Amino acid sequence: MFGFGYYSPTKVIFGKGTENQVGELIKTYGAKKVLIHYGGKSAVKSGLIDRVKASLKTSGVAYTELGGVVPNPRLSKVREGIELGKREDVDFILAVGGGSVIDSAKAISYGLAEPQKNVWELFAKKRKAENFLPIASILTISAAGSETSNSCVITNEETGEKRSYNDDIARPKFAIMNPELTMSLPDYQTESGCADIMMHTMERYFTQGGNMELTDEIAEGLLRTVIKCAKILHHDPENYEARAEVMWAGSLSHNGLTGCGNDGGDFASHMLEHEMGGMFDVTHGAGLSAIWPSWARYVYKNCLPRFVRYATQVMGVTPEDTDEKTALKGIEAMEDFYREIGMPVNFKELGIAPTDEQIREMAESCVRATGGHKGSAKVLYLEDMIAIYRMANQA
Amino acid sequence: MFGFGYYSPTKVIFGKGTENQVGELIKTYGAKKVLIHYGGKSAVKSGLIDRVKASLKTSGVAYTELGGVVPNPRLSKVREGIELGKREDVDFILAVGGGSVIDSAKAISYGLAEPQKNVWELFAKKRKAENFLPIASILTISAAGSETSNSCVITNEETGEKRSYNDDIARPKFAIMNPELTMSLPDYQTESGCADIMMHTMERYFTQGGNMELTDEIAEGLLRTVIKCAKILHHDPENYEARAEVMWAGSLSHNGLTGCGNDGGDFASHMLEHEMGGMFDVTHGAGLSAIWPSWARYVYKNCLPRFVRYATQVMGVTPEDTDEKTALKGIEAMEDFYREIGMPVNFKELGIAPTDEQIREMAESCVRATGGHKGSAKVLYLEDMIAIYRMANQA
Repeated sequence: MFGFGYYSPTKVIFGKGTENQVGELIKTYGAKKVLIHYGGKSAVKSGLIDRVKASLKTSGVAYTELGGVVPNPRLSKVREGIELGKREDVDFILAVGGGSVIDSAKAISYGLAEPQKNVWELFAKKRKAENFLPIASILTISAAGSETSNSCVITNEETGEKRSYNDDIARPKFAIMNPELTMSLPDYQTESGCADIMMHTMERYFTQGGNMELTDEIAEGLLRTVIKCAKILHHDPENYEARAEVMWAGSLSHNGLTGCGNDGGDFASHMLEHEMGGMFDVTHGAGLSAIWPSWARYVYKNCLPRFVRYATQVMGVTPEDTDEKTALKGIEAMEDFYREIGMPVNFKELGIAPTDEQIREMAESCVRATGGHKGSAKVLYLEDMIAIYRMANQA
Repeated sequence: MFGFGYYSPTKVIFGKGTENQVGELIKTYGAKKVLIHYGGKSAVKSGLIDRVKASLKTSGVAYTELGGVVPNPRLSKVREGIELGKREDVDFILAVGGGSVIDSAKAISYGLAEPQKNVWELFAKKRKAENFLPIASILTISAAGSETSNSCVITNEETGEKRSYNDDIARPKFAIMNPELTMSLPDYQTESGCADIMMHTMERYFTQGGNMELTDEIAEGLLRTVIKCAKILHHDPENYEARAEVMWAGSLSHNGLTGCGNDGGDFASHMLEHEMGGMFDVTHGAGLSAIWPSWARYVYKNCLPRFVRYATQVMGVTPEDTDEKTALKGIEAMEDFYREIGMPVNFKELGIAPTDEQIREMAESCVRATGGHKGSAKVLYLEDMIAIYRMANQA
């Protein structure tokens, strides 16, 4: 067991109709001019943006707006938001959307809080942030956990680099979570979200050096719940209870709770996927499910007790006569689950076919992004990353 | 499932030696004069208070001190702290101890933040707090969860009333949690702590109206972990891993996490125990284990599905041919567990023998404290409370 820090100050307001409290809430933080930041047209069409504006108006809070955030949110949109924020003297950012919109809002906040500096320097790991504008969100996609996390992932579309920057000062002030707002999502987005949520806990689960029993219990309970609800939502997307379970799991899976007492987590699958996202613009959760089985088969012998526990406690596998067999059965059960909810388990199913050259390019970029190596279950170097990409490409 | 709010902003610093970071940490909150608040002599004798002072000195933070907080912390000590704080111009309170010390610190903070008002009015529910001085803790007893909770319980020794006041503004800024600091506790205190920790989750578990699966999974995992570790610590009090599990469980059990999506919880056992504590000054956790079996037998038929689930998922009971039998077997298993760790399961074992008149007095006081009734598993009125006290007295 390792010592740890845990800090998750975001106030959560969870339940039906909670988005109508936004004006009242934002006012308690002394906001004078809010930037409403959102994605595509669905938030506008559904009337959500209008309700948000009405709530702000009622509370006497001024606002401006910027839509058009895309999945794998882009640096150009971030820069646009920073310029708008400067012109309009924005002092609070409200993200209305999923992880991409919230991450874009976080990046804009970094930029507005230190307006003389180039915001990409944070993601290029050239400096640390010293200030941050308060942000909050109304969540419409359960997936990234960005509504309570300290993470932010941005894609520099000029270089094809997808890079993260994590800092506790970026933890949002509050998160409004109404499960009904996620009901209109296409199935592929819903299930990609479930895959992403599970992976945030799995990245913290497959580690070396001892864990806390309490953390394992929470992690396993969360994973079982998401597996159950992902299956329900595949057939019954308007199931409120399942939507609610998945939404809350999304926050708890990435606010730090499921990693307390471990060594900081593996996160190699995430880093491998970031390169796939950067090069092929795939949906993040689907990218994760497409790379995970190959990662798992490549590393499981190095982290056998955890893979055995995962197989029995999460996937409900009956132990085989050897730990290796039990672990492999757990990985297979996970693939079966991914397939059942329509998620890919290799590159072909994901719809990408990188050449050998592109695989090397992704691996080299991953090495640069990770400072040379990544992982806890097994520490991966360039050749390991190439091998895993190849496995996923040939599966 | 119900909508909910969740807010647990306390920064947790967990692990060996973390108490030495206190000066550095407190400085980041801009504290100029800290009141170090603690209980008996053990914190002084062990050298902990000296280490705290050394850390504050190194960071250039001034301090004053007030010891002598007793279990079931008293209003007189709170008033003493308020007077001292005013004289010394204290702007931050550091509690070094367990729930009693932290609660006393919270009450002093309420008093110092509104110095013209009588602090007891909060506990008598005559007004709401409008301000609060920042507090933090170095935890030395795993039990109350006050290090991250919004709760504060104070005993007015003049009237014999033990009353709580809960307010989110009282959530501590940070909690330093070094499991080693709890190793010297007497077994009875350790196990009372475990009983208290479990009860904070059980109060939220035995409810009506639908729960979240994710919350249930977390609650059950937490309870199983504490049961396992309470047994270990009964024989091996210096087991670091078990100390750590229990310590972290103490925080998660009362910061709100194990109640998300339920109706707000039952908390009748807590209210019944408060009267026992007010009249007989019993150890809180032991008082809870002494009243719970009688409460459970009185209410279980009204909340059968939850008692059945508790029996099978937490106590590992094999289902009987009727739900009632399964539920009762779960209650018996819980009594066996309490006895195994040296905790009382009735008033005799707790060492109290209230007269019929005293039982009525406690019940009437409980009715006043709860505004007439209390409970979710079953709503309890005066006669119900009397009946439960009598059952515990005759068991």
